[in-house]
Amino acid sequence: METINIGILGFGVVGAGVAKLLKTKKELLEARIGAQLNLKTIADIDTETDRGVDLGDTALVNDAMQVIDDPDIHIVVELIGGETVAKRFTLKALENGKHVVTANKALLAGHGNELVGTARQNQVDLAFEASCGGCMPIIKSLRESLVANDINAMSAILNVTCNYILTKISQDGSEFEDALKIAQELGFAEAEPSLDVDGHDTAHKLAILNSLAHGMEINLEDIHVEGIRNITPVDIEFAREFGYTIKLLAIGKVRENHVEARVHPTMIAKSNPLSYVDGSMNAIAIDADATGKTMLYGHGAGMMPTASAVLSDIADIARNLIANTTRRVPILGYPEDNIRKIPILPMSELHTRYYLRFEAQDHPGVLSRISGILGDNKISIKSVHQKGRQTNGKVPVVMITHMAKEEWVQTALAKISATDSVVGAPVVIRIEEDEQA
Amino acid sequence: METINIGILGFGVVGAGVAKLLKTKKELLEARIGAQLNLKTIADIDTETDRGVDLGDTALVNDAMQVIDDPDIHIVVELIGGETVAKRFTLKALENGKHVVTANKALLAGHGNELVGTARQNQVDLAFEASCGGCMPIIKSLRESLVANDINAMSAILNVTCNYILTKISQDGSEFEDALKIAQELGFAEAEPSLDVDGHDTAHKLAILNSLAHGMEINLEDIHVEGIRNITPVDIEFAREFGYTIKLLAIGKVRENHVEARVHPTMIAKSNPLSYVDGSMNAIAIDADATGKTMLYGHGAGMMPTASAVLSDIADIARNLIANTTRRVPILGYPEDNIRKIPILPMSELHTRYYLRFEAQDHPGVLSRISGILGDNKISIKSVHQKGRQTNGKVPVVMITHMAKEEWVQTALAKISATDSVVGAPVVIRIEEDEQA
Repeated sequence: METINIGILGFGVVGAGVAKLLKTKKELLEARIGAQLNLKTIADIDTETDRGVDLGDTALVNDAMQVIDDPDIHIVVELIGGETVAKRFTLKALENGKHVVTANKALLAGHGNELVGTARQNQVDLAFEASCGGCMPIIKSLRESLVANDINAMSAILNVTCNYILTKISQDGSEFEDALKIAQELGFAEAEPSLDVDGHDTAHKLAILNSLAHGMEINLEDIHVEGIRNITPVDIEFAREFGYTIKLLAIGKVRENHVEARVHPTMIAKSNPLSYVDGSMNAIAIDADATGKTMLYGHGAGMMPTASAVLSDIADIARNLIANTTRRVPILGYPEDNIRKIPILPMSELHTRYYLRFEAQDHPGVLSRISGILGDNKISIKSVHQKGRQTNGKVPVVMITHMAKEEWVQTALAKISATDSVVGAPVVIRIEEDEQA
Repeated sequence: METINIGILGFGVVGAGVAKLLKTKKELLEARIGAQLNLKTIADIDTETDRGVDLGDTALVNDAMQVIDDPDIHIVVELIGGETVAKRFTLKALENGKHVVTANKALLAGHGNELVGTARQNQVDLAFEASCGGCMPIIKSLRESLVANDINAMSAILNVTCNYILTKISQDGSEFEDALKIAQELGFAEAEPSLDVDGHDTAHKLAILNSLAHGMEINLEDIHVEGIRNITPVDIEFAREFGYTIKLLAIGKVRENHVEARVHPTMIAKSNPLSYVDGSMNAIAIDADATGKTMLYGHGAGMMPTASAVLSDIADIARNLIANTTRRVPILGYPEDNIRKIPILPMSELHTRYYLRFEAQDHPGVLSRISGILGDNKISIKSVHQKGRQTNGKVPVVMITHMAKEEWVQTALAKISATDSVVGAPVVIRIEEDEQA
């Protein structure tokens, strides 16, 4: 039986998960793949800590080059994370003719085009199923299953930290900071949570998915990103009254010659299956022209779900090696020569519906003034909530708009904020809904 | 650019969908795959009817052998359906060294082991993503994405007709026959609906999925199958009161050295994501050891969703041909030598929970008599509903049991039916629930 040698860079949580699967599922993997997947070497700066994995004859070394320069190793699995060391090692491994499997979405979103070019020059594979959506087969679906589809729209819950926090606020009315603290205690949030709660991690994933869906170069910098720090129990409660749930969504949609690419808290109707995706679960809904609407749902993070996705990439490459082929499916779903630059729609050009909440002075005429400014800016209002929940002489005024242009909304809100009718910045949450709604 | 020639057998709804995709998505497919997918010939006994597809230089012939014997054709797509002609043509195509793509679950469930053997002898591929779950990438997920997982359990809604009818009964209290008639009018049910409503189509799919999940020979005949003809609005209403939804599920679970394989109406809790899968949608929930719970959701039938799945198989084989390889992923997920016979658990050995409804005589002592017989057979009752909904001196008595063995339940029900306390056969619906519930 053929032996395929694997080296892992980074023996953290996911690295330990991958090692554990390669060891404990040795027989299963051999029975399915028909080759031995031999974990030859793991490199990590910490070679002392016990990760609870019986390494057998696998070497644990502190020098990554012992993996990258090893002529016997076929597949290098990069699980260091970040964009500095990980980038250097990944490029070096590709240049050395190694196939690389990575779960590193920041690296791919920031430097993916360069990595894809290097992989091409060296005629090796670069695989990253674990970078988006944990164990969900989203990369494989976009590159292989949906091959005959034009992807019209994707909307996805891709960050466990944010979804856990929003679910918590929604279920018990916690404030953001308290929900974050609990998420940290339970291991659903990092001590330094900004990469997650400010939406950047979700944007990294959207940059990758948009590329695969539309055959476009990876473009992170033009994605509009908002996080969830300003989401309050009050807005979640109002959302519920209107029949909505608030989720941090990654949205990618085709709009004429552009792609909408945005990450922000979004109100979705209870009839949208994404509204039931709670806690640490992730999901992606895809609207494609042949399939119609489909959805994948699963654990978006965690040691073993992520390791499972890494193993699916390793198995794919192993099956290529056994078949004596490589780069069987193009890295970004299209051969590199067919990857285009597709512009991302400027946020000011977006048309959608809006939830607006103002802290209004409890004076006569205030509602008319707000709605007047909205009307002057072509924004028509579908419904208004003004309740007697007075606090310090202020009342919350909540409005749901019909379809409006982002630019009009921002202009109107600036004008409303400049009046003495409202206090503080208005809350703006975009609404995502089927066209007929 | 390389050209891959394709022939289609059967120009019905799905055949027309596949032809349409090959024609209208020609550029997209070339851009993604890097080869021309040329639809050379379509064979159907009806060469007259206009299917609304611009065939260009594709030949439409009435002799299947013009496809099967054509030395230029690389991939034969079998979309005839049924187990007679389709079987003969498929075997002949495999013997002629053609790769075969099929959507035919009846053929695979009934004769899959033989077809797999013939494909092996001739070193060709047999692909069938469209046979289960329409456009959902369930075959690819089991064969490739979950490669490092042991699959503990699958539960799935796999039949559009049944799910449409159950949703209809649930939403407006229709009787089965009326809901069926509407499903037929809307094209969600065949004029002769028994293959669907009696559960056989679902069983075909479960036989295929169990094989892929567990590396077992395809085994249709030992699957327990019940359909939905006896589901009444009354039971759906009681289910709702207990917090359940009724779905026709395909259930495949590992139980020690056996696999549970059963198709029957099932009560599932509202917390189960499958409970929201309504109308013509399908879904499969998979519980695997590394990934935990995941779910795929999408259109389970229909012209274009099914055609999309067929195209994903064609693209896979085309990518193999370009890479100068074949049979890169084993047909059943494991190389044929590693496929085992795994016995299906006899239904009498099943342990689950039960919903039981009796039409009881409205006499004193009847409840005690029923529950006494259940207790004598080791069945303990979790809750009882006995309402004053008297009709002709009968009252419905509804019970939910704790975990019990199917054999005990059937014995007890036979004894209860033999008393004069109840009228007619009791209604038995199994409950599927997380262990902690």
